[in-house]
Amino acid sequence: MGGNRDLAERFIATLEARDWDAWAGLLHPGVVYEIPQSRERIRGRDRYLRFNQEYPGDWHLRPKVTIADERHGVAWFEWLLDGRTDDAMAFFEFADGLITRVTDFWPESYEPPPGREHLVERWLPGALAKLRPPHAVTRDRSIPGVTASVA
Amino acid sequence: MGGNRDLAERFIATLEARDWDAWAGLLHPGVVYEIPQSRERIRGRDRYLRFNQEYPGDWHLRPKVTIADERHGVAWFEWLLDGRTDDAMAFFEFADGLITRVTDFWPESYEPPPGREHLVERWLPGALAKLRPPHAVTRDRSIPGVTASVA
Repeated sequence: MGGNRDLAERFIATLEARDWDAWAGLLHPGVVYEIPQSRERIRGRDRYLRFNQEYPGDWHLRPKVTIADERHGVAWFEWLLDGRTDDAMAFFEFADGLITRVTDFWPESYEPPPGREHLVERWLPGALAKLRPPHAVTRDRSIPGVTASVA
Repeated sequence: MGGNRDLAERFIATLEARDWDAWAGLLHPGVVYEIPQSRERIRGRDRYLRFNQEYPGDWHLRPKVTIADERHGVAWFEWLLDGRTDDAMAFFEFADGLITRVTDFWPESYEPPPGREHLVERWLPGALAKLRPPHAVTRDRSIPGVTASVA
């Protein structure tokens, strides 16, 4: 179980490092990768490796929370690209000390629907990093001239 | 740890059942709920309960994967509303047998960017339920007249 959590942590760390040999070494040769939001699937380690190697842009990943049990795991991380920072999460299935399935999600920001202002406070872009020091990163979405603060 | 996983499973099950007393009983009175996509935060069990009770529509939740350790947990679930089925996930923090923090994500579907067709297959709306029987649900997004199949 510690082993599976370690697999999930190394998945993010080796991607961030572009250590392709180490990254591919975590994967079962028949790994299946799925992106449900776009209904995309990649079958096999070789194609999945190529997908990541070819992914455009100077993207970076910063781990936030990793959880794993004997069969499933998840890595919640931030990804930074083109001055934006967003949350993302990859779910894993494990077998025999390897990752056999990866399913990831890339949520986008949105404005809340009206009608719940009486219950909700909002934070300014960039403010969460200050609120939660362990996850602090340099964010580029602060509004110029506005000091980020929690409502 | 089994206790925390049980908390995460009951969180989804009691929401689905609108068993508000049981649901609120899982939460620390000072629970903090956050929706990073909309930068919304609700402080405290009472307001969080009201938020869910007031949430409009005949929404339903179906659990897919739950993982927890001694401090963190996640529930990956489907939510059904107005004929749509989407994935969503709630991350938890635990203390003293209660949920002290909930952070959830509501990813939306999107079309993939061009340039990776040589690596990727796509499935039709509704097809994943057929591919993965353990998670099978009745989906309403199938294209009329088209038999869902995996590419």
